[in-house]
Amino acid sequence: MEEIPDSHPRKASLMSRQRMVEASKRGLLAESAMIAHGRGEAFDYLLGERTSDSAASAIREAAARLLVADSPVISMNGNSTVLAGSEAIMIASILGCPVEVNIYYRTSERMEALISELETLRGRLGRESSGMTSESIMGVEILGSVADGRIQGLEGPRSMCSSRGIEQADVVLVPLEDGDRCEALTSLGKQVIAIDLNPLSRTSKTATVTIVDEVSRAMGRIAEELLENPSTTDWNNESALRGALEVMSSSSLRID
Amino acid sequence: MEEIPDSHPRKASLMSRQRMVEASKRGLLAESAMIAHGRGEAFDYLLGERTSDSAASAIREAAARLLVADSPVISMNGNSTVLAGSEAIMIASILGCPVEVNIYYRTSERMEALISELETLRGRLGRESSGMTSESIMGVEILGSVADGRIQGLEGPRSMCSSRGIEQADVVLVPLEDGDRCEALTSLGKQVIAIDLNPLSRTSKTATVTIVDEVSRAMGRIAEELLENPSTTDWNNESALRGALEVMSSSSLRID
Repeated sequence: MEEIPDSHPRKASLMSRQRMVEASKRGLLAESAMIAHGRGEAFDYLLGERTSDSAASAIREAAARLLVADSPVISMNGNSTVLAGSEAIMIASILGCPVEVNIYYRTSERMEALISELETLRGRLGRESSGMTSESIMGVEILGSVADGRIQGLEGPRSMCSSRGIEQADVVLVPLEDGDRCEALTSLGKQVIAIDLNPLSRTSKTATVTIVDEVSRAMGRIAEELLENPSTTDWNNESALRGALEVMSSSSLRID
Repeated sequence: MEEIPDSHPRKASLMSRQRMVEASKRGLLAESAMIAHGRGEAFDYLLGERTSDSAASAIREAAARLLVADSPVISMNGNSTVLAGSEAIMIASILGCPVEVNIYYRTSERMEALISELETLRGRLGRESSGMTSESIMGVEILGSVADGRIQGLEGPRSMCSSRGIEQADVVLVPLEDGDRCEALTSLGKQVIAIDLNPLSRTSKTATVTIVDEVSRAMGRIAEELLENPSTTDWNNESALRGALEVMSSSSLRID
């Protein structure tokens, strides 16, 4: 990877971009993944590339709901694995829940590559920690290779999932989900916690709790919030989306 | 290419995306080109995927300045060639000026591929027209293979250009330029007409006239405006950028 000086104001964004380019070469990503990432970059730019107060509330709510869930799961695709794979492992280790690789354009090559990527990240995080923390990290189960479950309401490969992961989950944390699948999951009565930089997307509008924030920032903060033991509230997702839009439109007027 | 029904409200955007995916497979694009395209998609989404009044004024001003230029040139990179190569040839044929391929990540393979792509487009447009129009299209010179000029203020391959193109130009039309090069060109006293969907980018802020619009729409309209013989004005680029931002922020508040 190219060196980006620490002083660069957009260092985090540029490093994420490099990670995507590298991952694309390694075959981890779908064809249009880079375009989706670019869309995200633009929305994050409008957010000032930082977690808004509105997103921080959504993150707290997400953490609270994950803590009281009976059977939470974290559903990961190519982009979210590349950008926030380690954070997903950390969250799963705190919750004691599985991570499931579940992708829109399903091929066995990409499924295997993503599962092995998450296993590598898990190994690295486990070695960097010690004692109980290390043990719970190493104990995180990575599902996806056995597709013995179904998401009712979807057709074909997109309906495939793990019976011990998404199929039986009551709360699904899905960074960067597509609109159809988000709708199908909520129709099944599951709570969907989505992370999506576009507050106008179908996923943002149909999720139970939408975190309008860049995925690695949001996932890192969910891990931190989980340790604070927050409580759930009467969550109004529409007002959260409105909050995100207000930040974007007011920030976009700062021109100098 | 996949068929997208005419009725699809976002047909133009989806077709551009397909062109980018195809061009990427053919090696015409830099690694991060798809990410840049995605950023553009997001900003265009906020613009409602149409040319705003504010952009239309910038287009008229751009046409006026190109018409009175002593030595105009159109500087094309990978993305702009893929998205608006034909439009660039049309503008050049009306102005009687050259098109120069000038790319940020310069390799001889990509330079040759882009020059040959523009030559193919020129041939096709020439054959589709007749008489004087066809002649002036076929007469458009495509520069870039001989890098005997320099852009002062830049280092390494990024400073390379054609002595008969960008180096000697007084007005440079650059769809999708990077910030450093835009600054270097204006520092040299050249007028830079930029097309950039991000009104907050360094390019947008440093260009002489910034057209905040999708590149193929903007280039097509510049060609039309040139035939109307518009006159230059006392252009206030900051107020044009403000106009673009206002459109984006008002549209982004439409949530339903």
